[in-house]
Amino acid sequence: MKIKELQTPALLVDGAALEYNLATMSEALPGPRLRPHVKAHKCTELARRQAEGGHTGFTCATIRECEGMAAAGLGSDLMLANEVVDARRIGALIAMNKAARVTLAVDSDASIEAAAAGGVRDVVIDVNVGLPRCGCAPEDAGRLADLARARGLNVRGVMGYEGHVVGVEDRAVRESSTADCMKLLLSAHADVGGELISAGGTGTYDINTWANEIQAGSYALMDTAYGHLDLPFRQALTVLATVISVAPGYAVADCGLKALGMDHGNPTIPDATVFFCSDEHVTFIPDEGAPVKFGDRIRVVPAHVDPTVAYHERMHITDGDGVAETWPVDLRGW
Amino acid sequence: MKIKELQTPALLVDGAALEYNLATMSEALPGPRLRPHVKAHKCTELARRQAEGGHTGFTCATIRECEGMAAAGLGSDLMLANEVVDARRIGALIAMNKAARVTLAVDSDASIEAAAAGGVRDVVIDVNVGLPRCGCAPEDAGRLADLARARGLNVRGVMGYEGHVVGVEDRAVRESSTADCMKLLLSAHADVGGELISAGGTGTYDINTWANEIQAGSYALMDTAYGHLDLPFRQALTVLATVISVAPGYAVADCGLKALGMDHGNPTIPDATVFFCSDEHVTFIPDEGAPVKFGDRIRVVPAHVDPTVAYHERMHITDGDGVAETWPVDLRGW
Repeated sequence: MKIKELQTPALLVDGAALEYNLATMSEALPGPRLRPHVKAHKCTELARRQAEGGHTGFTCATIRECEGMAAAGLGSDLMLANEVVDARRIGALIAMNKAARVTLAVDSDASIEAAAAGGVRDVVIDVNVGLPRCGCAPEDAGRLADLARARGLNVRGVMGYEGHVVGVEDRAVRESSTADCMKLLLSAHADVGGELISAGGTGTYDINTWANEIQAGSYALMDTAYGHLDLPFRQALTVLATVISVAPGYAVADCGLKALGMDHGNPTIPDATVFFCSDEHVTFIPDEGAPVKFGDRIRVVPAHVDPTVAYHERMHITDGDGVAETWPVDLRGW
Repeated sequence: MKIKELQTPALLVDGAALEYNLATMSEALPGPRLRPHVKAHKCTELARRQAEGGHTGFTCATIRECEGMAAAGLGSDLMLANEVVDARRIGALIAMNKAARVTLAVDSDASIEAAAAGGVRDVVIDVNVGLPRCGCAPEDAGRLADLARARGLNVRGVMGYEGHVVGVEDRAVRESSTADCMKLLLSAHADVGGELISAGGTGTYDINTWANEIQAGSYALMDTAYGHLDLPFRQALTVLATVISVAPGYAVADCGLKALGMDHGNPTIPDATVFFCSDEHVTFIPDEGAPVKFGDRIRVVPAHVDPTVAYHERMHITDGDGVAETWPVDLRGW
């Protein structure tokens, strides 16, 4: 199939850029040094490529992601990097699938109790290293680990995501901030023990040398937010759109709010300026000398990969003008 | 089933508020005066309730919405209020489903040619009334209607959406701007002819008395953006979330960017201030005197209904503490 035959909007992944990104990351963080986060692509076929590259442990954000990964035979070492109130689906998953292992994040007495009650076996102590989100105070990590062990849970170590740092454009600040964050995580790990010190993202993959595994996900597909950083990864993801209307001074294509994550702002369009997005439209101003006409295909580059992919049922892996493969985005929902 | 048994995040629709909104709108715009836009809810079961209220013509934004509505037996008078480059799926739909009728928006020579080539029978001339998006110049509408008729298409009239006006908070400005827009649409209609003068949205449903049918959609479920206006509709839609982590000064619930349309900004949470959203989290600051604890259920009110619903597989219609019905969001995708 040719790209031009696709219905639009359609999620395109440049096959060569994807391969480049996967290879570049695998060289920097071989094997278990990388625990790819599947939330960025929500696609078991893409995860399979990451596993073939030696990364057989994965990070998940939802129970559905864990279930889907296990069903695809990729569940030998899943970390659900979120607290869960009702953990029974995780307990059922590991009870029914002997090849599956799910390590659940806990950050409070109550979340430990929920893990134990749900039939979870493995946990990691989630430590707040500065991002105001989940995670216990570093000085409380040892106590929680003791509590978890007393409840019969296997404590595999610590995780602490420097999510407020991964997007900082100044590399020197990113480095010093990551060091500050990881000092907290290592102090927690000294109290907790266990083999895992899990942290990091695409923006700190080569900076965070304190963690022994990095939870990067966006690097495979990339977005314009990470594109502003000094990273070696290529923009693999675009949304293919069709120009449906042209007026003096602007044009409209069929890729809108329901095909794009908008929390990082508007997408970008090569040789054009994005004016605004509506539910099913993007209105844009073509650069002088780059006019468009009804039926033209354009590429829209998302500002944020994760919530963009989550709107689409499938992604098309391209090779030049052709579609080499089409992969279902099969880990959506909850 | 009880609401408290639902997995989160989950889309909840307050059944009483929904009924109130549907009844209030049907009283204001009975029968064919309203052509409900299904893009706001993407749910054939909800559309069926609107049809039972007397509104049997619907507005759609995508071909998939047309196909789904026709398959549900609700396709007797669908308007696809967008231009389409490849109209063959519409041609196939009306050829294979004798009960289905799809009227396609056209705004250029090329879009008329595409409609004819795809097997479309009915069109409406899409007129730009001020929103910089699709639509021809008002003075070109008559020529396009002639061209469409010459190509064998049945021209049913005009549409022109005052999308830049529907959200204006000052009612007097909304009224005068709508009048300006509709002056343009009526002048186009004088040249085009046909039975349809289609326009309007939830924000102008009772202001736009020039159009003979109103394409409102958001009124059924509502969002905080429309909630700022002086409209009689009640907030029916919320996202149910579970508190998964509590820290001094803030808490985190499991409803993030992948469960919310973010183009209108952060959602709101009663008795709390939203701090920020991540992919699967909302970090929020509970009001003094309204503390939350691990496992608490909260309601997150989306800022924009359409791209929120499009993330969810189903919506739960609630009745007090119970779930009365669960409807698939079956018109998603393209």
